[in-house]
Amino acid sequence: MVQIITLTTDFGVSSPYVAAMKGVMLSMNPQLQIVDISHSIPPQQIAIAAMALADTALLFPAGTIHVAVVDPGVGTSRRIIYAEIEPHRFICPDNGLLDRLAERQAPTKIIQITEQQYFRHPVAPTFHGRDIMAPVAAHLSLGLDPQRLGSPHPKLKNLDWPGATRVANRIEGQVVAVDSFGNLITNITREMLVGVPTDESVTVRCDEHETHSIFTTYAEQPPMTLVALIGSNDQLEIAIVEDSAKIMLGVGVGAPVEIVW
Amino acid sequence: MVQIITLTTDFGVSSPYVAAMKGVMLSMNPQLQIVDISHSIPPQQIAIAAMALADTALLFPAGTIHVAVVDPGVGTSRRIIYAEIEPHRFICPDNGLLDRLAERQAPTKIIQITEQQYFRHPVAPTFHGRDIMAPVAAHLSLGLDPQRLGSPHPKLKNLDWPGATRVANRIEGQVVAVDSFGNLITNITREMLVGVPTDESVTVRCDEHETHSIFTTYAEQPPMTLVALIGSNDQLEIAIVEDSAKIMLGVGVGAPVEIVW
Amino acid sequence: MVQIITLTTDFGVSSPYVAAMKGVMLSMNPQLQIVDISHSIPPQQIAIAAMALADTALLFPAGTIHVAVVDPGVGTSRRIIYAEIEPHRFICPDNGLLDRLAERQAPTKIIQITEQQYFRHPVAPTFHGRDIMAPVAAHLSLGLDPQRLGSPHPKLKNLDWPGATRVANRIEGQVVAVDSFGNLITNITREMLVGVPTDESVTVRCDEHETHSIFTTYAEQPPMTLVALIGSNDQLEIAIVEDSAKIMLGVGVGAPVEIVW
Repeated sequence: MVQIITLTTDFGVSSPYVAAMKGVMLSMNPQLQIVDISHSIPPQQIAIAAMALADTALLFPAGTIHVAVVDPGVGTSRRIIYAEIEPHRFICPDNGLLDRLAERQAPTKIIQITEQQYFRHPVAPTFHGRDIMAPVAAHLSLGLDPQRLGSPHPKLKNLDWPGATRVANRIEGQVVAVDSFGNLITNITREMLVGVPTDESVTVRCDEHETHSIFTTYAEQPPMTLVALIGSNDQLEIAIVEDSAKIMLGVGVGAPVEIVW
Repeated sequence: MVQIITLTTDFGVSSPYVAAMKGVMLSMNPQLQIVDISHSIPPQQIAIAAMALADTALLFPAGTIHVAVVDPGVGTSRRIIYAEIEPHRFICPDNGLLDRLAERQAPTKIIQITEQQYFRHPVAPTFHGRDIMAPVAAHLSLGLDPQRLGSPHPKLKNLDWPGATRVANRIEGQVVAVDSFGNLITNITREMLVGVPTDESVTVRCDEHETHSIFTTYAEQPPMTLVALIGSNDQLEIAIVEDSAKIMLGVGVGAPVEIVW
Repeated sequence: MVQIITLTTDFGVSSPYVAAMKGVMLSMNPQLQIVDISHSIPPQQIAIAAMALADTALLFPAGTIHVAVVDPGVGTSRRIIYAEIEPHRFICPDNGLLDRLAERQAPTKIIQITEQQYFRHPVAPTFHGRDIMAPVAAHLSLGLDPQRLGSPHPKLKNLDWPGATRVANRIEGQVVAVDSFGNLITNITREMLVGVPTDESVTVRCDEHETHSIFTTYAEQPPMTLVALIGSNDQLEIAIVEDSAKIMLGVGVGAPVEIVW
C-alpha cells in the first residue's frame, strides 16, 4: 500500500522550503508518494487555502495525509492539530484551514499536537512546517497512532467566511477567490441556485457589471463575453470567455455579486 | 513495472485543478508515478503546448500515458481522443495538441473517447480534465484495452502552424514560442538550415534587429549580445546572452524571422 | 530501497526542459523518485541556487543524488563534476553551486565527468542538463561506480560570496537573497550573533532603515512592523510582519546590513 501525503502551502514556487519539508519526510519514510496541491496560495490567505483543500483533498485515496502550512501565527501559541475527516487525515495550524471541508462533513477526531518526541529538533520558531508538521506526518505514514500526538481537542477554529443570502427572488454574495484564468469564484453554491431560472430572465451583477443567463460551459458564448456559470467546484463563477474577468472587470476578492430574477 | 502518466495543462501553478486530476488518478491507481510536463502553458495556447509535448513526451519510457488539457472548447462538442504514437499513448482534446508530434511520426491508432462508464460522474461541463481524461488515463494504466473507450477516428485535427520557407539563399519563418529565459524559438528547423553558412556571411533578422553568424552555444559571445543559435529542440533561436531577447527586443510570438546568405 | 534524485534549476516553472530531464532519467530507471528542490532560481544566479542546496539537500535521505543545473557556461569548457559530501552525491557544473555546502562539510570525492559513454547522444551544446547530467545521474542510480565517470579533480570552484565581519560591538554584512515572502536573508549567521544582545539595546540597520531587538518569530510584533530575526536557515533575516520587506523597503540582494550594540 502506497502512503500518499499532500502539501498545501503559501511558500511560493521559488521557495526551497517545500523541498525542505519533502526531504525531512522522505528521510523518515522513503516510500512516501508526496503530491503538491498548491504552493502558490497567496501569502497567509487562509480562506484561499481552505477552498483549495475543500476542492481537492477528498479526491485522493482513503487514508491520505494532507499537510497544510498557511500559518501567519507560526511561533505563537496557536495550536497545531491533527484532524480526521473520514476517510482522510489532516495536519495543519488550527486557524480555519479545514473550515470549508468541515462544513461539509464534521471531523470525527481532533487532537492538539504537543508530543515533542515526534518533532525534528531543534524546532525553528519560524518553520513549524519542516520541524513539526512534516515529521509528524511521516510518523503517521509509518503507522503511529494519532492518539499519541497529544490530547483531544473539542472543536476546530472557524474561518470568517462571508455568507451568501437568498431572500425571495434575490441572492447576495461576493467573490471569494480568483483562479489562475482570472475567473471570479463566488460564495454562491449550486444548492443556493436550485429553482433560479438560467435563461435570460435572470440578472447576475458583479460590482458594476451585469450579464443575463447562467451557463454551464465557458464556450457557449463568443470570446470576450461576460458570462456567469456554475464551476467545477459547484460555486457560481463570473468569467470572460477566453480572457481574464479579474483584469477586464477590474474586480477581485470581496466584490459584491447579486442575482435577481 | 511502474506506470507513468504525464500532465500538460494551462491551469497555472497556483491552481488546485492539477491536484484534483492527480487525486482522481491516484484514487484509482495509487501505484502511479505522475510527472508534470508543464502547467504554465499560456491559457488556451494550443501551439505552445503542442511544442512542449513534441520536445518532451518521447523522452519518457515506452508505454507512458500523456494527458494534455489545453481545452478552450471544454463542454462543447469537440472530441476527446486517445492516440498512439508508438510507443507512447496520449489522451487530449482533438484540437491540434498532437500536431507537432504527429508531423514527425504518424499515429497508429486514434479512438474517439465516448464510453461514459470510464468517466467520473457527474461530469462537470467545465472540467473534463478531472472527470473524463484523468479517470480514462487511470483505467488505461490499470490495463483497460483502449478499443473499449469508443470508436476509431480517422484523423487528428491539424494545428494552424505557420510554415517556414526556404527559397534560393533565403529562409523566411517566424517566432513561434518564447521560453522562460526570454529566448525566441522560431519555426526554422535544423534540417532547413543544412548547407546554410554559419559564419559572418549569414544574416539573421528578427523584426527590426539583425545579427550575423549562427552559433551553437549561448556563451560564445559577450553578455548582452544578440545571437542566433540552434537550440536543444533543433529549432533556430534568437537570444540575448545572459538576458531576455523578448524584453530587450520587444518581440514575441509571430515576429518575422529572415535568414539570408 | 527507493533511489531519490533531486533537481535544482533556473529553467522556470513554465519550461518543459525540466520534464525533458525527468523523461531521460525515468526512461533509464523508471523506479526513480524525482523531487524538485526549485526550478525558479533566478536565471544564472549561482549564489541563490547554492543557498537553496545548502538549506535543503542534506535533509534528504543518505545516498540521494542531487542534480543542479544553473549553468551560464553551458557549452563552454567549464567542467561538469560529481562530488560526494557525505552521505550525499551531487552532479553539477563546477561553478560554485556547491560552495555553501562545501563550506560546512568538505567533499570527500570530486570527479570531473568526461566519459561520454554515459551521456545521451547527440549532446546538444545548449542542454547539458538533459544530455549529460540527467543520464549520468540515472546511471549512478542504477549502481554505476562514480570512479568510472572520469578522473579525480582536486578542488571545487569557489563562489564569490560576500563575507560578514564582526569587530568589537559591530557586525557588518549584506543581503544575499530574498525569499518568496519578500524577507531579506543576510549573510550574518546565528554563530556570528552569539553574545549579541537581542533586546532593545541592539540596533539592526538595513540600507537606510533600522529596527531594535532580534526576535525569534514573525508574529511577535504587529503587522507592518520592521523586524530582525534569525530565520529557519540560521541566518539573520530582515522582515516586515505580514508584508514584503523587499517591496516596502525597496531593498534587495547586496544591500548593506549593520548590527551595533
